[in-house]
Amino acid sequence: MRAEFVELTNMCMVRSRDGKYLVIDRRDSSWPGLVFPGGHVEAREAVGDSVVREVYEETGIRIRSPRLCGLKQFTNHEGKRYLVFFYTACTYTGELRSSPEGEALWLTMDEIRDRRPVDGFFEMLKVFENDGISELYYFPQPSEKRLRYL
Amino acid sequence: MRAEFVELTNMCMVRSRDGKYLVIDRRDSSWPGLVFPGGHVEAREAVGDSVVREVYEETGIRIRSPRLCGLKQFTNHEGKRYLVFFYTACTYTGELRSSPEGEALWLTMDEIRDRRPVDGFFEMLKVFENDGISELYYFPQPSEKRLRYL
Repeated sequence: MRAEFVELTNMCMVRSRDGKYLVIDRRDSSWPGLVFPGGHVEAREAVGDSVVREVYEETGIRIRSPRLCGLKQFTNHEGKRYLVFFYTACTYTGELRSSPEGEALWLTMDEIRDRRPVDGFFEMLKVFENDGISELYYFPQPSEKRLRYL
Repeated sequence: MRAEFVELTNMCMVRSRDGKYLVIDRRDSSWPGLVFPGGHVEAREAVGDSVVREVYEETGIRIRSPRLCGLKQFTNHEGKRYLVFFYTACTYTGELRSSPEGEALWLTMDEIRDRRPVDGFFEMLKVFENDGISELYYFPQPSEKRLRYL
Protein backbone atom coordinates (compact mmCIF):
# COMPACT_ATOMS: atom_id res chain seq x y z
CA MET A 1 0.00 0.00 0.00
CA ARG A 2 1.24 3.46 -0.84
CA ALA A 3 -0.27 5.90 1.62
CA GLU A 4 0.81 9.38 2.65
CA PHE A 5 -0.14 11.82 5.38
CA VAL A 6 -2.83 14.11 4.01
CA GLU A 7 -4.96 16.83 5.56
CA LEU A 8 -8.48 16.45 4.15
CA THR A 9 -10.90 19.37 4.21
CA ASN A 10 -13.98 20.66 2.40
CA MET A 11 -15.52 23.97 1.33
CA CYS A 12 -18.94 24.72 -0.11
CA MET A 13 -20.31 27.52 -2.27
CA VAL A 14 -23.97 27.82 -1.29
CA ARG A 15 -25.94 30.19 -3.50
CA SER A 16 -29.43 31.43 -2.66
CA ARG A 17 -32.22 31.93 -5.21
CA ASP A 18 -31.74 35.69 -5.01
CA GLY A 19 -28.03 35.43 -5.88
CA LYS A 20 -26.44 35.70 -2.43
CA TYR A 21 -23.61 33.54 -1.18
CA LEU A 22 -23.28 31.95 2.25
CA VAL A 23 -20.03 33.12 3.85
CA ILE A 24 -18.40 33.30 7.23
CA ASP A 25 -16.22 36.15 8.39
CA ARG A 26 -13.35 34.10 9.80
CA ARG A 27 -11.86 35.28 13.08
CA ASP A 28 -8.84 32.97 12.69
CA SER A 29 -5.81 35.23 12.70
CA SER A 30 -3.89 32.97 10.29
CA TRP A 31 -6.51 33.29 7.52
CA PRO A 32 -8.98 36.05 8.42
CA GLY A 33 -11.77 37.37 6.22
CA LEU A 34 -14.85 36.30 4.29
CA VAL A 35 -14.86 32.78 2.91
CA PHE A 36 -17.28 29.99 2.03
CA PRO A 37 -17.93 27.64 4.97
CA GLY A 38 -16.04 24.35 5.37
CA GLY A 39 -13.62 22.44 7.55
CA HIS A 40 -11.95 19.10 8.20
CA VAL A 41 -13.08 15.66 7.09
CA GLU A 42 -13.19 13.44 10.18
CA ALA A 43 -11.72 9.93 10.32
CA ARG A 44 -13.94 7.41 8.50
CA GLU A 45 -16.38 10.14 7.49
CA ALA A 46 -17.63 10.27 3.89
CA VAL A 47 -16.35 13.45 2.27
CA GLY A 48 -19.88 14.35 1.16
CA ASP A 49 -21.11 14.02 4.75
CA SER A 50 -18.28 16.15 6.08
CA VAL A 51 -19.27 19.16 3.98
CA VAL A 52 -22.92 18.96 5.09
CA ARG A 53 -21.78 18.79 8.73
CA GLU A 54 -19.28 21.66 8.47
CA VAL A 55 -21.67 24.02 6.68
CA TYR A 56 -24.28 23.28 9.35
CA GLU A 57 -21.88 23.75 12.26
CA GLU A 58 -20.61 27.07 10.94
CA THR A 59 -23.82 28.62 9.62
CA GLY A 60 -26.94 26.74 10.83
CA ILE A 61 -27.76 26.01 7.18
CA ARG A 62 -28.35 22.38 6.24
CA ILE A 63 -27.43 21.84 2.59
CA ARG A 64 -28.89 19.05 0.46
CA SER A 65 -27.17 17.13 -2.35
CA PRO A 66 -23.85 19.00 -2.41
CA ARG A 67 -22.07 18.44 -5.71
CA LEU A 68 -18.31 17.94 -5.94
CA CYS A 69 -16.93 20.56 -8.34
CA GLY A 70 -13.17 20.62 -7.81
CA LEU A 71 -10.09 20.42 -5.64
CA LYS A 72 -7.55 22.77 -4.14
CA GLN A 73 -4.22 21.45 -3.01
CA PHE A 74 -1.16 22.89 -1.41
CA THR A 75 1.60 21.86 0.97
CA ASN A 76 0.89 22.62 4.63
CA HIS A 77 3.37 23.95 7.18
CA GLU A 78 4.47 20.40 8.00
CA GLY A 79 5.24 19.65 4.35
CA LYS A 80 2.15 17.44 4.04
CA ARG A 81 -0.41 17.49 1.24
CA TYR A 82 -3.45 19.61 2.12
CA LEU A 83 -6.53 18.82 0.05
CA VAL A 84 -9.75 20.84 -0.09
CA PHE A 85 -12.78 19.23 -1.72
CA PHE A 86 -14.89 21.95 -3.31
CA TYR A 87 -18.66 21.56 -3.45
CA THR A 88 -21.60 23.61 -4.66
CA ALA A 89 -25.13 23.50 -3.24
CA CYS A 90 -28.28 25.42 -4.06
CA THR A 91 -30.90 23.65 -1.95
CA TYR A 92 -30.91 23.93 1.83
CA THR A 93 -33.02 24.47 4.93
CA GLY A 94 -32.43 26.12 8.31
CA GLU A 95 -31.92 29.51 9.88
CA LEU A 96 -28.68 31.43 9.66
CA ARG A 97 -26.67 31.53 12.90
CA SER A 98 -23.01 32.25 13.61
CA SER A 99 -20.42 30.06 15.33
CA PRO A 100 -17.15 30.66 17.17
CA GLU A 101 -15.44 30.39 13.74
CA GLY A 102 -16.93 33.75 12.76
CA GLU A 103 -20.09 35.58 11.78
CA ALA A 104 -22.27 33.83 9.18
CA LEU A 105 -23.75 36.04 6.45
CA TRP A 106 -25.57 35.97 3.13
CA LEU A 107 -23.80 38.44 0.82
CA THR A 108 -23.76 39.29 -2.87
CA MET A 109 -20.45 38.84 -4.70
CA ASP A 110 -20.13 42.64 -4.87
CA GLU A 111 -20.50 42.85 -1.10
CA ILE A 112 -17.85 40.14 -0.61
CA ARG A 113 -15.50 42.04 -2.93
CA ASP A 114 -16.12 45.33 -1.11
CA ARG A 115 -15.53 43.86 2.34
CA ARG A 116 -12.53 41.67 3.13
CA PRO A 117 -12.37 38.24 1.46
CA VAL A 118 -9.65 35.82 2.64
CA ASP A 119 -6.34 35.66 0.76
CA GLY A 120 -6.83 33.60 -2.39
CA PHE A 121 -10.63 33.88 -2.38
CA PHE A 122 -10.94 34.78 -6.05
CA GLU A 123 -8.36 32.15 -7.02
CA MET A 124 -10.70 29.55 -5.47
CA LEU A 125 -13.81 31.16 -6.95
CA LYS A 126 -12.55 30.37 -10.46
CA VAL A 127 -12.76 26.64 -9.68
CA PHE A 128 -16.23 26.91 -8.11
CA GLU A 129 -17.59 28.86 -11.07
CA ASN A 130 -15.87 27.08 -13.96
CA ASP A 131 -17.02 23.67 -15.12
CA GLY A 132 -13.82 23.37 -17.14
CA ILE A 133 -11.52 23.77 -14.13
CA SER A 134 -11.17 20.85 -11.70
CA GLU A 135 -8.18 21.87 -9.59
CA LEU A 136 -6.29 24.78 -8.08
CA TYR A 137 -2.76 23.60 -7.37
CA TYR A 138 -0.23 25.64 -5.39
CA PHE A 139 3.36 24.68 -6.03
CA PRO A 140 5.27 23.43 -2.96
CA GLN A 141 8.39 25.47 -3.75
CA PRO A 142 8.15 29.25 -3.75
CA SER A 143 10.80 29.41 -6.48
CA GLU A 144 8.47 27.91 -9.07
CA LYS A 145 5.32 29.40 -10.53
CA ARG A 146 2.97 29.99 -7.60
CA LEU A 147 -0.18 28.24 -8.80
CA ARG A 148 -1.75 26.33 -11.66
CA TYR A 149 -5.29 25.56 -12.74
CA LEU A 150 -6.04 22.07 -14.07
CA MET B 1 -2.72 20.17 11.79
CA ARG B 2 -5.03 17.17 11.51
CA ALA B 3 -3.63 14.78 8.94
CA GLU B 4 -4.27 11.09 8.38
CA PHE B 5 -2.69 8.34 6.29
CA VAL B 6 -4.56 8.18 3.01
CA GLU B 7 -4.02 6.20 -0.18
CA LEU B 8 -4.73 8.57 -3.09
CA THR B 9 -5.61 7.16 -6.52
CA ASN B 10 -7.42 8.15 -9.69
CA MET B 11 -9.56 6.56 -12.41
CA CYS B 12 -10.78 7.96 -15.70
CA MET B 13 -13.73 7.16 -17.94
CA VAL B 14 -12.53 8.02 -21.47
CA ARG B 15 -15.28 7.85 -24.08
CA SER B 16 -14.64 7.91 -27.82
CA ARG B 17 -16.83 9.70 -30.36
CA ASP B 18 -18.24 6.37 -31.50
CA GLY B 19 -19.34 5.43 -27.99
CA LYS B 20 -16.52 3.13 -26.93
CA TYR B 21 -14.82 3.17 -23.56
CA LEU B 22 -11.12 2.90 -22.84
CA VAL B 23 -10.53 -0.05 -20.51
CA ILE B 24 -7.73 -2.29 -19.38
CA ASP B 25 -8.11 -5.98 -18.68
CA ARG B 26 -6.32 -6.09 -15.36
CA ARG B 27 -4.03 -9.04 -14.73
CA ASP B 28 -3.78 -8.25 -11.01
CA SER B 29 -5.04 -11.32 -9.21
CA SER B 30 -6.49 -9.27 -6.35
CA TRP B 31 -8.84 -7.29 -8.64
CA PRO B 32 -8.88 -8.87 -12.11
CA GLY B 33 -11.07 -7.89 -15.03
CA LEU B 34 -12.03 -4.95 -17.21
CA VAL B 35 -11.84 -1.51 -15.63
CA PHE B 36 -11.19 2.10 -16.57
CA PRO B 37 -7.49 3.05 -16.40
CA GLY B 38 -6.00 4.76 -13.34
CA GLY B 39 -3.51 4.40 -10.52
CA HIS B 40 -1.76 6.13 -7.66
CA VAL B 41 -1.21 9.84 -7.13
CA GLU B 42 2.51 10.39 -6.54
CA ALA B 43 3.91 12.57 -3.75
CA ARG B 44 3.55 16.30 -4.57
CA GLU B 45 1.80 15.50 -7.84
CA ALA B 46 -1.36 17.42 -8.75
CA VAL B 47 -4.29 15.01 -8.81
CA GLY B 48 -5.25 16.21 -12.29
CA ASP B 49 -1.72 15.47 -13.54
CA SER B 50 -1.72 12.01 -11.99
CA VAL B 51 -4.75 10.88 -13.97
CA VAL B 52 -3.24 12.08 -17.28
CA ARG B 53 -0.01 10.22 -16.44
CA GLU B 54 -1.70 6.98 -15.38
CA VAL B 55 -4.02 6.79 -18.39
CA TYR B 56 -1.01 7.35 -20.66
CA GLU B 57 1.16 4.75 -18.90
CA GLU B 58 -1.55 2.11 -19.03
CA THR B 59 -3.01 2.73 -22.49
CA GLY B 60 -0.78 5.02 -24.60
CA ILE B 61 -3.69 7.47 -24.76
CA ARG B 62 -2.98 11.05 -23.70
CA ILE B 63 -6.17 12.65 -22.37
CA ARG B 64 -6.78 16.40 -22.36
CA SER B 65 -8.73 18.41 -19.79
CA PRO B 66 -9.93 15.57 -17.56
CA ARG B 67 -12.90 16.67 -15.49
CA LEU B 68 -13.33 15.63 -11.85
CA CYS B 69 -16.74 13.94 -11.53
CA GLY B 70 -16.72 12.13 -8.20
CA LEU B 71 -15.03 10.11 -5.49
CA LYS B 72 -14.94 6.55 -4.28
CA GLN B 73 -13.76 5.77 -0.81
CA PHE B 74 -13.27 2.68 1.23
CA THR B 75 -11.02 1.36 3.99
CA ASN B 76 -7.93 -0.48 2.74
CA HIS B 77 -6.47 -3.64 4.28
CA GLU B 78 -4.39 -1.56 6.69
CA GLY B 79 -7.48 0.26 7.97
CA LYS B 80 -6.49 3.45 6.11
CA ARG B 81 -8.73 5.64 3.96
CA TYR B 82 -8.43 4.78 0.27
CA LEU B 83 -9.64 7.56 -2.03
CA VAL B 84 -10.22 7.32 -5.77
CA PHE B 85 -10.68 10.55 -7.71
CA PHE B 86 -13.00 9.87 -10.65
CA TYR B 87 -12.53 11.81 -13.87
CA THR B 88 -14.12 11.85 -17.30
CA ALA B 89 -12.39 12.81 -20.55
CA CYS B 90 -13.56 12.90 -24.14
CA THR B 91 -10.61 14.52 -25.93
CA TYR B 92 -7.31 12.69 -26.35
CA THR B 93 -4.49 11.83 -28.71
CA GLY B 94 -2.17 8.83 -29.12
CA GLU B 95 -2.23 5.23 -30.20
CA LEU B 96 -3.58 2.43 -28.05
CA ARG B 97 -0.94 0.14 -26.52
CA SER B 98 -1.00 -2.22 -23.58
CA SER B 99 1.17 -2.25 -20.45
CA PRO B 100 2.20 -4.86 -17.88
CA GLU B 101 -0.99 -3.89 -15.97
CA GLY B 102 -3.07 -5.59 -18.66
CA GLU B 103 -4.36 -5.35 -22.21
CA ALA B 104 -5.74 -1.95 -23.24
CA LEU B 105 -8.95 -1.98 -25.28
CA TRP B 106 -11.71 0.23 -26.65
CA LEU B 107 -15.01 -1.53 -25.90
CA THR B 108 -18.70 -0.69 -25.96
CA MET B 109 -20.55 -0.93 -22.65
CA ASP B 110 -22.31 -4.06 -23.93
CA GLU B 111 -18.94 -5.66 -24.64
CA ILE B 112 -17.70 -4.77 -21.15
CA ARG B 113 -20.85 -6.26 -19.66
CA ASP B 114 -20.49 -9.45 -21.73
CA ARG B 115 -16.83 -9.97 -20.83
CA ARG B 116 -15.56 -9.76 -17.27
CA PRO B 117 -15.66 -6.34 -15.56
CA VAL B 118 -13.93 -5.99 -12.17
CA ASP B 119 -15.94 -6.44 -9.00
CA GLY B 120 -17.88 -3.24 -8.33
CA PHE B 121 -17.54 -1.91 -11.89
CA PHE B 122 -21.21 -0.98 -12.26
CA GLU B 123 -21.29 0.51 -8.75
CA MET B 124 -18.57 2.91 -9.89
CA LEU B 125 -20.20 3.52 -13.26
CA LYS B 126 -23.20 5.11 -11.52
CA VAL B 127 -20.93 7.88 -10.21
CA PHE B 128 -19.21 8.44 -13.58
CA GLU B 129 -22.53 8.68 -15.40
CA ASN B 130 -24.61 10.60 -12.89
CA ASP B 131 -24.14 14.32 -12.39
CA GLY B 132 -26.23 14.11 -9.24
CA ILE B 133 -23.93 11.56 -7.55
CA SER B 134 -20.57 12.75 -6.18
CA GLU B 135 -19.42 9.83 -4.08
CA LEU B 136 -19.48 6.06 -3.70
CA TYR B 137 -18.76 5.27 -0.07
CA TYR B 138 -18.10 1.76 1.21
CA PHE B 139 -18.70 1.32 4.93
CA PRO B 140 -15.65 0.26 6.93
CA GLN B 141 -17.57 -2.32 8.97
CA PRO B 142 -19.09 -5.28 7.15
CA SER B 143 -21.89 -5.40 9.71
CA GLU B 144 -23.35 -2.12 8.43
CA LYS B 145 -24.91 -1.40 5.05
CA ARG B 146 -22.26 -2.16 2.46
CA LEU B 147 -22.24 1.06 0.44
CA ARG B 148 -23.88 4.44 0.03
CA TYR B 149 -24.11 6.97 -2.77
CA LEU B 150 -23.81 10.64 -1.87
